[in-house]
Amino acid sequence: MIGAGTVGSGVIKLLRQNRALVEQRAGCEIVLKRVADKDLRPRRGVGLRPGLLTNRVKDVLADPSVDIVVELIGGLEPARQYILEALRHGKHVVTANKAVLAKHWDEILGTAKRASKDIYFESSVAGGIPLLRSLHDGLSANRIKSIWGIVNGTTNYILSEMRRRRIEYPVALAEARKKGYAEQDPSFDINGIDAAHKLSILVAIAFNQSVPVEKIYTEGISRITRQDMVTAEEEFGQVIKPLAIAQVEAGELDVRVHPALIPKKHPIAGLDGCLNGVHFIGDAVGAVMFQGQGAGQMCAASAVVGDIIYLARNIRMGVAGKVPFIYYKPNPKPLPLRQIGKIESRYYLRFTVVDKPGVLSAISGVLGSHRISIASAIQKENQRGQKVPVVMTTCEAREADIRKALQKIDRLPVVKDKTLLLRMARED
Amino acid sequence: MIGAGTVGSGVIKLLRQNRALVEQRAGCEIVLKRVADKDLRPRRGVGLRPGLLTNRVKDVLADPSVDIVVELIGGLEPARQYILEALRHGKHVVTANKAVLAKHWDEILGTAKRASKDIYFESSVAGGIPLLRSLHDGLSANRIKSIWGIVNGTTNYILSEMRRRRIEYPVALAEARKKGYAEQDPSFDINGIDAAHKLSILVAIAFNQSVPVEKIYTEGISRITRQDMVTAEEEFGQVIKPLAIAQVEAGELDVRVHPALIPKKHPIAGLDGCLNGVHFIGDAVGAVMFQGQGAGQMCAASAVVGDIIYLARNIRMGVAGKVPFIYYKPNPKPLPLRQIGKIESRYYLRFTVVDKPGVLSAISGVLGSHRISIASAIQKENQRGQKVPVVMTTCEAREADIRKALQKIDRLPVVKDKTLLLRMARED
Repeated sequence: MIGAGTVGSGVIKLLRQNRALVEQRAGCEIVLKRVADKDLRPRRGVGLRPGLLTNRVKDVLADPSVDIVVELIGGLEPARQYILEALRHGKHVVTANKAVLAKHWDEILGTAKRASKDIYFESSVAGGIPLLRSLHDGLSANRIKSIWGIVNGTTNYILSEMRRRRIEYPVALAEARKKGYAEQDPSFDINGIDAAHKLSILVAIAFNQSVPVEKIYTEGISRITRQDMVTAEEEFGQVIKPLAIAQVEAGELDVRVHPALIPKKHPIAGLDGCLNGVHFIGDAVGAVMFQGQGAGQMCAASAVVGDIIYLARNIRMGVAGKVPFIYYKPNPKPLPLRQIGKIESRYYLRFTVVDKPGVLSAISGVLGSHRISIASAIQKENQRGQKVPVVMTTCEAREADIRKALQKIDRLPVVKDKTLLLRMARED
Repeated sequence: MIGAGTVGSGVIKLLRQNRALVEQRAGCEIVLKRVADKDLRPRRGVGLRPGLLTNRVKDVLADPSVDIVVELIGGLEPARQYILEALRHGKHVVTANKAVLAKHWDEILGTAKRASKDIYFESSVAGGIPLLRSLHDGLSANRIKSIWGIVNGTTNYILSEMRRRRIEYPVALAEARKKGYAEQDPSFDINGIDAAHKLSILVAIAFNQSVPVEKIYTEGISRITRQDMVTAEEEFGQVIKPLAIAQVEAGELDVRVHPALIPKKHPIAGLDGCLNGVHFIGDAVGAVMFQGQGAGQMCAASAVVGDIIYLARNIRMGVAGKVPFIYYKPNPKPLPLRQIGKIESRYYLRFTVVDKPGVLSAISGVLGSHRISIASAIQKENQRGQKVPVVMTTCEAREADIRKALQKIDRLPVVKDKTLLLRMARED
């Protein structure tokens, strides 16, 4: 094991706690040979026998008795280096590292393939929910039409609490931090980068195509207000959820991460708090959804140890490296990515305007001149001469048109703040 | 393929429709060699080339060029015979047959193991939802604490419609028949037998213990009325769902199929219509749930073809038979089964009584003398001297006590019909 932080300690605990069951399922003993970590102090709740802990990674990578390297340090470097070295040293790898997989998919999977070694990473997406294996094996007969998921627990918690308790974003964020659901620097979660990493892995499996995170259109949740949650719910029967979306549209791959309004009756809408869940539509199976806790020490450990058991069983049967988890082949014909301007959606627009006569007609005039039809307009507060929010929803429109219209609208003298745009999910 | 009915035709369609994708994932061509069926007439929407269809099963079983036998005739015999013969003839098997697996688990799995052949049966439980593989591989590091599922779409459809549209059971049943959601003889669905078959398979995988269907406590849904649905929802915020339950309680395995009241906020409560879903609690992963359509030609085909792809890939890599889907070992120490009388639950009791003074106190007197505390009592209709329903819910009680009390209550002269007992799920 490389990296014995929270997840690593969980893995060690779980291997101990369920030793008999794990060994029965693996069909052999699973021995923790070495644990490399910068920090050599004893772990809370995890007694490691002397000599097990080392601060030299090569004690793990160069040990000929090690069959499986479990990489749990996270981040890009040196994790990438360690994973590649482990594979080249003839070791199978289990990792929870979404960032390195999203960034270096082809290099890592290609190296594993050339070395005839396996790499497993169920815990990299949606914690303990066995999503990747289900997608890869269970749904393999399907052409995947769409993936809609909540794969970031922090943002789901924040938006859920804003809705449930009618609190503002900064309050919910502070609470998430306090409860340990958000990191001290939560920007990767809040800005959607963490979800984009996970989506990149899902897309690589579902569409055999690795999409670099920087090419995934990504939008955060920080501009959403308590009032947006209330309006979405009370006026439209919708909830605002932090979505990761991948779908094929007219031969293009539409991949994006952003909050969106989703009808309350959609299964994704019911995923509250820290829950993660992914909803797939396959051409044969129809809609299936998987849900569970997406974060937490023991959830992640569940997936890591599941991968270790699978590998150990295959090693014992002499078939490891011959049944790679991923049918990995570089894709000679990747689908072009759909630009965000080309997507079509209904939109929720929240304008911040000075409350005076003619404002609504000025805005709707600009929208109309960009071929955008308004489905509803709501102005709740009336304070002549003051800044008030006005919400409009549109019929299906092209995002490029919406954006052009908003550029003009946001330059109108009566518009006092950048307009908030949220996409509205289709009813299906 | 043996049996080319609805699911078989779906499998043939799917293999064609997604040929390129299936072959890319399998890494080889998948050829349909022979199809055995009693009915040699052409299939609707499925053109089979001449010579492919035969009415002699041995044309499939004895063909040395056949690697995989797909059994889709269902039922116990001759399906059991065909599966065993196929394995003994050195063929791998894919089957959708829940009844034969539930009844002959040890014989079939044991035969596969001795023959070093694989048997896969993802489609036998919950249609296209990749449940079994997820449970077996993805959750393998967990001691499974409980399985709660809706694994029968027919009964879920009926109860969902009774609730949604406030209709009576016979109306909903007739409709389910008309829409093709219920068979002409729906007794296996209605009485819980179909769910018990599926539960038996889930239990075999989760607890490595095969429980014969006749030992699973099974109760149908036919005594539930529109009024029960309304009372559950309006008075208690609960919905009545057809559950399959397996859990370990004090070293005993509690396995049962019956409708139950479940809080609206529980994820299972949101599974409406024909949806299937299974909620697992594992000691590491916590709660995870999988949901999707549980029935339908292409759902089932999705799972069958997924199994074929998996097998084909392993055959090509020379590892089939070495990586059995099931860590099958006869269990030397099966857990004793918990008798239904020993379970503890809260109960919903609907009495049919003559509306006259003293009735409630007579009933509650009997309950009290059996150590059963009443949590609430509701009598909506008032028609002096007429039969009216009275609903009581109890605090946590032992089922044996409840049953003894009900035996006495049902003999009271004021009680005019057998009391309906429904269990109430715990809040977690």
